Amino acid sequence: MQPQPGLRGASLEAIETPALIVELDALERNIARMAAFGQQSGMRIRPHAKTHRCPAIAAKQVAAGAVGICAQTVGEAEVLVEAGITDVLVTNEVLARGKLVRLARLAGQARVALICDSGEGVAAASRAAAEHGVELGALVEIDVGMGRCGVLPGVPARELAQRIANAPNLAFRGLQAYHGRAQHLPRHADRQGAIQEAAEAVRETLGALDQAGLSAEIVGGAGTGTFRLEAAAGLWTELQPGSYVFMDREYAEIEGAVGQPEPEFEHSLFVLAGVISRSETRAVADAGLKSLSGEKGLPLLRDVSGAEVIGLSDEHSVIVPAPGSPQLRLGDRVQLIPGHCDPTVNLHDWILGIRGGRVEEIWPVAARGASG
Amino acid sequence: MQPQPGLRGASLEAIETPALIVELDALERNIARMAAFGQQSGMRIRPHAKTHRCPAIAAKQVAAGAVGICAQTVGEAEVLVEAGITDVLVTNEVLARGKLVRLARLAGQARVALICDSGEGVAAASRAAAEHGVELGALVEIDVGMGRCGVLPGVPARELAQRIANAPNLAFRGLQAYHGRAQHLPRHADRQGAIQEAAEAVRETLGALDQAGLSAEIVGGAGTGTFRLEAAAGLWTELQPGSYVFMDREYAEIEGAVGQPEPEFEHSLFVLAGVISRSETRAVADAGLKSLSGEKGLPLLRDVSGAEVIGLSDEHSVIVPAPGSPQLRLGDRVQLIPGHCDPTVNLHDWILGIRGGRVEEIWPVAARGASG
Repeated sequence: MQPQPGLRGASLEAIETPALIVELDALERNIARMAAFGQQSGMRIRPHAKTHRCPAIAAKQVAAGAVGICAQTVGEAEVLVEAGITDVLVTNEVLARGKLVRLARLAGQARVALICDSGEGVAAASRAAAEHGVELGALVEIDVGMGRCGVLPGVPARELAQRIANAPNLAFRGLQAYHGRAQHLPRHADRQGAIQEAAEAVRETLGALDQAGLSAEIVGGAGTGTFRLEAAAGLWTELQPGSYVFMDREYAEIEGAVGQPEPEFEHSLFVLAGVISRSETRAVADAGLKSLSGEKGLPLLRDVSGAEVIGLSDEHSVIVPAPGSPQLRLGDRVQLIPGHCDPTVNLHDWILGIRGGRVEEIWPVAARGASG
Repeated sequence: MQPQPGLRGASLEAIETPALIVELDALERNIARMAAFGQQSGMRIRPHAKTHRCPAIAAKQVAAGAVGICAQTVGEAEVLVEAGITDVLVTNEVLARGKLVRLARLAGQARVALICDSGEGVAAASRAAAEHGVELGALVEIDVGMGRCGVLPGVPARELAQRIANAPNLAFRGLQAYHGRAQHLPRHADRQGAIQEAAEAVRETLGALDQAGLSAEIVGGAGTGTFRLEAAAGLWTELQPGSYVFMDREYAEIEGAVGQPEPEFEHSLFVLAGVISRSETRAVADAGLKSLSGEKGLPLLRDVSGAEVIGLSDEHSVIVPAPGSPQLRLGDRVQLIPGHCDPTVNLHDWILGIRGGRVEEIWPVAARGASG
């Protein structure tokens, strides 16, 4: 674990760069907005910790009314339960014996559920839970059009649900119906089409479950790009958004629904970098691909009007000023809005919470690297 | 820091996924090949630790004859010196007071040098070294066509070298002439052209230094994509390759020089992943963007003939078999060759060294996250 890049009370200028910072006011407004949406729409909100891997932020989400937290890995779930989160849903298939044993141990301390899309997964989870004398919740993942994990909707999903219902020490809890690929479709109409297709898959599966006398306490899914669509469909019961707490360049660029207030969520997450080199035409800051995930393109600059990041290498970002604007100076601090927030956060051991230009919180990214 | 994903002696099947593994035989052959090139060509080899951030690998490079190790950050330099490396060159501008103080402290324990491209950088480094009563080596970085850091070749470089030579507690050690952008140019002829241009910049600068009575003990630069070209130019004295120890998809795809033995270096680095979901058309493994850096494209599969990774999301890779080939099964292990090795290694706390299919070494990536 790296040393903390700043002390409580420090100004931005006193933080060692590169550092991951979050504007607390914006973060708290984002959390409050999603919580308010849940109340207005009657949807349960179960935010996803894969975005922040940070128990302090999960605790804020629970305090705002979240019914529990989603994890994507057993390692994330362990960190969340350790930090006092009492209801964790692992929204991923878990097959390895060692991981199921860890999950079963957690189920002795908190309400824990996982996702299945195979008979092998059901059998292995049941065995681990039985050996530890605990109950694990289990949801059937259906492929709602994403083309990744999940069984086919309808009868195949019902058959797997029945296996869960009959398996010792497993409790059938419902359906996982997440359309990840839909989240970043730039056009709102395309996202709408994708979630309509997903809704058909959910409807068909709920019908099949009903015929078998099975009911889905949870129908989970949705992310920051589509959650209003799942809520409007009237089939989902829990929304699992993650990125809304931070936002990133990719999410900020998708088209909003017509008539929707913009910006729905604010950028709260930035990588603070320092200028270490400059010439007449460019400045170079000390944050690169090891501080900012680059697969979704270049970061944006915050508050440096018109300046642009034109290149990102392993440890550097190259910045050019807007035509006619003054060049950055050596030692200047810049704030970069990441292209993609989840893998960016996973590069850092600490998030510094900033309010009024000073460090107010120093949060460990306690599940950084917890990918297993 | 995450728990070790495997025990010494474990088979690949017993390693928790995702995990970063290195084939020790291939790693050692790569290190030996570069060392042999140094001996044959009369070039000093100073491998770059930004690639592996792992003192155990740096120690192997030194044992094979490296004259010292390059670091890109002060944090990396600290980890290397702590591990017993006695000669470290930080191939990057360092301006922040806190970092220069840390570097000056290191200079009490090892031979330490850094790179400058501004008078401010020279003055700040001199002040920190003087306060600690140590000597810091300093090299002038010249922009050899990369368009990132560095002063202009010739007179501007000579002026900065004179400032270093006159600055208390700094020793002028030479020139940094690295062309990072050239490393991955796919065509050999383009790399050749770029390094010819770089050589002109070096030649001009050495001439200017000579007129001022300054000599460059080190002319450093080169990477895995161009090191033979710098060696052939007769101007560089130290080669700083990093990726050759591991190789990655991007480096493996650049065109070799005509008549050059291929493969010059072997893939030694892999991300081990487990299949957690499958359907008739695809399999999904548990390594995504948090285990493999994605900005250089998709990973390749090792040893699964014809199968392809067609998608990489935060925690998943989607794999399709070759037409007519059998599909992967649940629980199968796959090995992924990363698109880009440096930021991939930085996602992991451990490298498991494999020989004969079993874990022989468990190395901490001790400078993981040490980006400041």
